[in-house]
Amino acid sequence: MALYVQKYGGTSVGSVERISVVADKLIGYKQQGHDIVVVVSAMSGETNRLLALANDISKQPSVRELDVLLSTGEQVTIALLCMALEQRGQSARSYTGGQVRIETDDAHGKARIKTIDDHRIRADLADGRIVVVAGFQGVDCDGNITTLGRGGSDTTGVALAAALKADECQIFTDVDGVYTTDPRVVSKARRLERITFEEMLELASLGSKVLQIRAVEFAGKYNVALRVKSSFEDGPGTLITYEDNDMEDALISGIAFSRDEAQLTIKGVPDQPGIAHAIIGPIAAANVEVDMIVQNVAGDGSTDFTFTVHRGDFSKALAILETTAKQVGAKDVSGDDTIVKVSVVGVGMRSHAGVAATMFDALGKEGINIRMISTSEIKISVVVMEKYMELAVRTLHDVFELDKAA
Amino acid sequence: MALYVQKYGGTSVGSVERISVVADKLIGYKQQGHDIVVVVSAMSGETNRLLALANDISKQPSVRELDVLLSTGEQVTIALLCMALEQRGQSARSYTGGQVRIETDDAHGKARIKTIDDHRIRADLADGRIVVVAGFQGVDCDGNITTLGRGGSDTTGVALAAALKADECQIFTDVDGVYTTDPRVVSKARRLERITFEEMLELASLGSKVLQIRAVEFAGKYNVALRVKSSFEDGPGTLITYEDNDMEDALISGIAFSRDEAQLTIKGVPDQPGIAHAIIGPIAAANVEVDMIVQNVAGDGSTDFTFTVHRGDFSKALAILETTAKQVGAKDVSGDDTIVKVSVVGVGMRSHAGVAATMFDALGKEGINIRMISTSEIKISVVVMEKYMELAVRTLHDVFELDKAA
Repeated sequence: MALYVQKYGGTSVGSVERISVVADKLIGYKQQGHDIVVVVSAMSGETNRLLALANDISKQPSVRELDVLLSTGEQVTIALLCMALEQRGQSARSYTGGQVRIETDDAHGKARIKTIDDHRIRADLADGRIVVVAGFQGVDCDGNITTLGRGGSDTTGVALAAALKADECQIFTDVDGVYTTDPRVVSKARRLERITFEEMLELASLGSKVLQIRAVEFAGKYNVALRVKSSFEDGPGTLITYEDNDMEDALISGIAFSRDEAQLTIKGVPDQPGIAHAIIGPIAAANVEVDMIVQNVAGDGSTDFTFTVHRGDFSKALAILETTAKQVGAKDVSGDDTIVKVSVVGVGMRSHAGVAATMFDALGKEGINIRMISTSEIKISVVVMEKYMELAVRTLHDVFELDKAA
Repeated sequence: MALYVQKYGGTSVGSVERISVVADKLIGYKQQGHDIVVVVSAMSGETNRLLALANDISKQPSVRELDVLLSTGEQVTIALLCMALEQRGQSARSYTGGQVRIETDDAHGKARIKTIDDHRIRADLADGRIVVVAGFQGVDCDGNITTLGRGGSDTTGVALAAALKADECQIFTDVDGVYTTDPRVVSKARRLERITFEEMLELASLGSKVLQIRAVEFAGKYNVALRVKSSFEDGPGTLITYEDNDMEDALISGIAFSRDEAQLTIKGVPDQPGIAHAIIGPIAAANVEVDMIVQNVAGDGSTDFTFTVHRGDFSKALAILETTAKQVGAKDVSGDDTIVKVSVVGVGMRSHAGVAATMFDALGKEGINIRMISTSEIKISVVVMEKYMELAVRTLHDVFELDKAA
C-alpha cells in the first residue's frame, strides 16, 4: 500500500483508445491497494494545434494569453481520463492547476512552482478516488493561469509527489527505463536498475530525453524517488535516486551523445583580459546558446578559441564571429557543422582515476580523432567527427563493459 | 461614453479571420470612448468536437468532467481574442468563468449563476483594458467548473451586464435584429426597433431562435437592456426592453411558427376526474414534452383529448397513447405529424379585443382550416396543416400590417 504519483505524457494519452488503456492500468494499481494521483499532459499534437492558432492571430502572442490558451490542452485530457475511469466504475476527480491549487510565480510560459495546496487531493484519496491533475500549469498569486513550459508535466508530477510525500513519482513514457546508451546505436545497451540524480541530469542535458531536466533537479531538491517506466509494457523501469552509496558499483553509468552540434574556431586573437567576453558576448546576445568552450594559448601573444553551438545556430553564430574577428583583429575564423559530442557519465569516476585515459586510449585505437575535450566531476565529453559517432559510442560501451550488470 | 457588455457567438468567432474582425470591431467601440466587456462562445464546431471525444470514451460521461471538458472551448476563444486585440495595440485581459469569479449552483451542465465578483473587471476597465470573459461557464462554491448549458453565453452576457450595471447588453448574432416574422417566409418582414421581454419570450419559445430564453428571462428580472445586433454588418439592431409603455403602438409585434410539431388525439375517454392525468402522465413520464392541450366534452359522458408534441417524439407518444387507450377504455387514437403551429404575439392584444376574431377570419378566407387553438395573455396560437404554413404566416403578416412601422 503506497501512494504513487504517476505521470503520463502526450503520447500515452494521445487518443481515446490510449486514454482507455491508461484508465485500465490505473485501476490495476488501485486494485493492488495503492493510492494514485495521476498527472497528464495534453494529447499529443494538441499543444501544436493551439500554438498554430495563436501564431495565426499574432506573431508575438501575449504570454499571459498563450498560457490561457495552452492550458486547455491538459484540461481536455484530465476530463477524458476521469470519464474513462468512471465509465469503468472507478470514482475519480479532475483538477486543473488552478483548482489544486498549484501556485507559481508569474513568469508566463516558464513559471516555477511555489506552493501546492494538497487538501482537496488528500480528501479525495481518503474517499477512494483516483485524482487526475493537469500537468504543466498553475496559477500565480492573482489567479492568472501560468504554464511551466514544455515538458512541465514531469515537474508537476515531482512537485505533487513532494507535496504529498508520495512513495514514488513514476514517469510513464515511451521507453521502459534509462539505458546505458541508445539501444538503436548499441544493440547491447542495457536498462539500468538505478541511476543517481546527478548522472540523470548529465544524461538528460546531453540528449537522452527521457525526463525533463527541471523535473530531475526538483526531485533531487525534495528527495523524491523518481521512476521511469513504460506506458506500453510492464516492467520495473529505472529508479532515479539521490543516494549514491546505494548505487551499483559501476565507474560509468551511461554514454550520451548529441548529433545536434557545430563547432566554431577563431584563431590568432590578442591574448588580453576581456577577450573571451568580446568573442562569446555577441553570440550570447543573439540568443545562441554556447555549450563547450576551449581556449589554447598559441605562445605568440595570441590565443585560439573553440566553442560549440546547436547545429541550427551554426550559420548565425559564424556570421557574428566573422564580424567579431574583424573588430578584434583575429587571424582566422573557421567552423564545422559535421561534428558530434559523445560523453561518458558516472558518479563512479569521482573516486576512480583513469577514466579519461581509458576513454582516450579506446578512441585512439579505433582511429577516432578527438577535436575537443571538456570534463566535469562526473562526465567527460569529447567532440569527434560525425561519421565516427556510432563507432565511438559502441567502443566506449564495450570498454567500460556497460552491457554487464555491476 | 457608455459601458457595453457585448456577446459574440460561436459563428462570429468561428475562425482566426472572424476573431480578427471582432477585434477590429471592439477597438472601434473602444475608440468611440466606450468601456467594453466581451463575452465569447467556443469557436463554432469546437463544442461538438469535444462532445464527440467524450462520447467515444463513455456513453454517459460524468457531468462534472463534461463541464471540465466543454469549458475549454470558450477558454481557447478568450485567449485568441485577447491576442488579436493586443496584436492591434489594444490592451486586453481574458478571464475564465472561475477567474471572474462567476459563482453558480452545482447543477453541472445547466448551472444557474448565483453571484458575480466584478472587482477585477472594474479594475481592468479603469486601466483602459477591454475585458474578455468566457461565456457559458462558472464555478460552484467549491471551485468545481460548471456550465450553464448550450447557449449559456447569452446568459453570461446578461448576468455580467446586470452585475456591472452596464448601459446595454448587446448580443451579436448572424441576424441584424428581431423581425416581425421569418424574412425567408415573408419577404416584407420588417426589423423591429424594439420589442418587449414578454413578446421576446413568446417569440423565442415559438422558434425564433435569436436569443436563449433563459437569457431573456434573466434580463427581464434584472432590468438589463438587451440589444440584438449583427456580427457582420452595422445597424441599430433590435432593443429588447421591459417597459411596455415605451413601446411601438402595435397590436401585434410578430408572427412565430414552428414546423417541429405533431398532433395526437384520443377519443371517447370516460369523462371523469383524474382522466387528464391518466392520459398526459405516461407521456410526460417518458420525457416527452407536451405543448398545447385541448379537451372537448363529447356530450355522451365521454370526452376527447388533443395535444401536440415535438415531431421527433411522435411515434413514441403514439405508442404510449395506444397503451393508455386500452387501459382507460377509449374508443379511438389518432395522430398527425404533418401539422404546424402559427402564433401571433403582441403585448398590444392585452388591451384590444378582436385580435382572435381578425386572425380566424383572415385564415378562414384563405380556406385554411384551424385544427387547434391555444391562447395566452399576449399570444394566440393555432395548429394548421403543414402545407398551409407559409400562406398562413403571410396572410397574418398582411392583415396585421406588420410591414408598416407603427
